[in-house]
Amino acid sequence: MSPAFAIVCGAGSLPLEAAREIEQAGRNVFLVGLVGSAGREIERHPHLWVRLGEVGKLLAALKARGIVEVGFLGAVTRPDLGDLLPDWGAIVRAGEIAKLFRGGDDTLLRGVARLFESEGLRVVGPSEFAPGLLAPRGEIAGPPPDEDARADIGFGARLLEAMSPFDIGQGAVIAAERALAIEAAEGTDRMLARVAELRAGGRLRLKGRVGVFVKAAKRGQDLRLDMPAVGPATIAAAKRAQLVGLAVAAGEVLIADRPAFIKAAQEAGLFVHGWPA
Amino acid sequence: MSPAFAIVCGAGSLPLEAAREIEQAGRNVFLVGLVGSAGREIERHPHLWVRLGEVGKLLAALKARGIVEVGFLGAVTRPDLGDLLPDWGAIVRAGEIAKLFRGGDDTLLRGVARLFESEGLRVVGPSEFAPGLLAPRGEIAGPPPDEDARADIGFGARLLEAMSPFDIGQGAVIAAERALAIEAAEGTDRMLARVAELRAGGRLRLKGRVGVFVKAAKRGQDLRLDMPAVGPATIAAAKRAQLVGLAVAAGEVLIADRPAFIKAAQEAGLFVHGWPA
Repeated sequence: MSPAFAIVCGAGSLPLEAAREIEQAGRNVFLVGLVGSAGREIERHPHLWVRLGEVGKLLAALKARGIVEVGFLGAVTRPDLGDLLPDWGAIVRAGEIAKLFRGGDDTLLRGVARLFESEGLRVVGPSEFAPGLLAPRGEIAGPPPDEDARADIGFGARLLEAMSPFDIGQGAVIAAERALAIEAAEGTDRMLARVAELRAGGRLRLKGRVGVFVKAAKRGQDLRLDMPAVGPATIAAAKRAQLVGLAVAAGEVLIADRPAFIKAAQEAGLFVHGWPA
Repeated sequence: MSPAFAIVCGAGSLPLEAAREIEQAGRNVFLVGLVGSAGREIERHPHLWVRLGEVGKLLAALKARGIVEVGFLGAVTRPDLGDLLPDWGAIVRAGEIAKLFRGGDDTLLRGVARLFESEGLRVVGPSEFAPGLLAPRGEIAGPPPDEDARADIGFGARLLEAMSPFDIGQGAVIAAERALAIEAAEGTDRMLARVAELRAGGRLRLKGRVGVFVKAAKRGQDLRLDMPAVGPATIAAAKRAQLVGLAVAAGEVLIADRPAFIKAAQEAGLFVHGWPA
C-alpha cells in the first residue's frame, strides 16, 4: 500500500472534503491540523496537531510515516514572526523562515513550498489530489450571465490580470464596467460587506440588483498552496451586496461545501458562472 | 476687464481657496454652488446656486456674464439619474447626459467636460487656475521617506499605474511591498479607516507604525475635472491607520487647507512626500 497523502489543514470544510475525496479514491490520508485554524473534525482521520512554527515536529511525523506527498488546504491567518512557537526544527531553518515574512502572501507561500521541498517532500495542489473541489467551466448555479453581466465579468477578469504582478488581485466587484471594490488584505467577505455598506449608506447609488463578484487566482500564484475559495458564506455576502451573480475562474477556485453553496445561490437568485466558458 | 472665471463648487475648502488665489492674481471669480455639496461660504463671492441637473440655468448664467472659462473643484457625490432635477437645458441635452451614466467616474467627468465645451466654454484645470493648490515635488511635511518607505512608494506607484486603464487606482496602502488596501468606489477616507480596523481587529498583524498611503491621478484621467485631493482629514485617517507617511504624485494631487494639513502631519509624525522627487 502506498504511503498516506498528508494534508496540512487550515480552517473550514475544504480539508475534510479533500480527505473524503482521497479516501474514496482508495488512498489513506494523514491530516495535520494547525492549532487555532483547523476544526476538531480532522480527528476522525489519522491526524496530528501542530502549532505554527512546529516545523520539526511536522517534518518528523511525515518522515516517520514514509509520507512523501503533502497538500495544504483551508484558511490560515497570516502569522506574525512573534506568534510562532518555534521548535528546534524551525530554529535550524530560521534563516529561511525569516525570509518568508517580507512581501505578499504569495512570497510567503512560495517559501513554505520551497522549505518542504528542500526536505524531500513533494508539494501537491488540490487540482491533483482533490480535483472535484475545483470550479468547473460554465453554469454552476442559476441561469447564464446576461450580456451586461458578461461585460462586467470580462472587465473584472482583465482588471485582476493587470493587478496580478503585484501579488494581489483575487477578487473585485464590477457593476456597469466600473470597479466598486477591490480585494486586498481584507479578504473576500469583508470586501463584499463593504459593497453592501456603501449601497446601504447611499455612497453607491445603484438601483436593484446589479454587479458581479469576479474571483480568480493571481497569474503566477502557486495554486498548490493558496487556491482562492468560495463557499456558502460567499453567497450570503454577495446577496447582501445585492449582486446578480458570481464569476469564478474555472480550475483556479475551490468551492467549499458545494451542495450547500449551489442551494444558497439558487435560493438567493444568484448565478454562479465558471469562466472562461 | 476680462470676464470672471467661473468655478463650479462642490464640497470642502478647495473652491474657496482657489477663488482666493484667482482674486489675488487680479481676476474676478464667479462661484456656482452645487446645492447639497458646496458650503455657504461661496456667498462671500459673486455666486449662483444650482441643483444637479440645472444645466440650462447654469449655462445661461455664465453666458449672461460673458464667462468663457470654467473650472470644477470640490467633491460631488456621484449622482443618480433619478436624483437629477432636470431643467429644460438638461432635457434638450438628455441624450448626452444619459450616456454619462455608464462606466467609471472618469467616463462621467469626460462627458461633463464635453458637454460644457460643446456650449463654447473652455474647461480649465486647477493646474492652470490655482496652481498653488497642487502638491509640489519633494518633502511637503516631515523628514524624507526612509529606504523601506521609498520601496513602498515605488511599489504603490507601479500598482496604481497598472490599474489606471480600468478607471480606478487613485490610492493604495502599501507596507513592506504588500498592498494592504486598494481604493475603489469607497474613497480614500474609508480605505484608510479599513486599514485601521484590520490592524485593530488583528486581521493585519503589523507591529508599530508601518505603511505608506500612495495617491496619484489615474493615467489619462482628465485632471481638469477630478484631480485627487488630500487634506487634514487624510492625515487624521493615516494616523489612525498607523502609517509612517503619505506619498502624493506631485502636480497631480490637490492639498486642501495646506497650513492645517502640514501642521497635522507634523503633529502626527507623518511624512508627506511629493513624488517623483
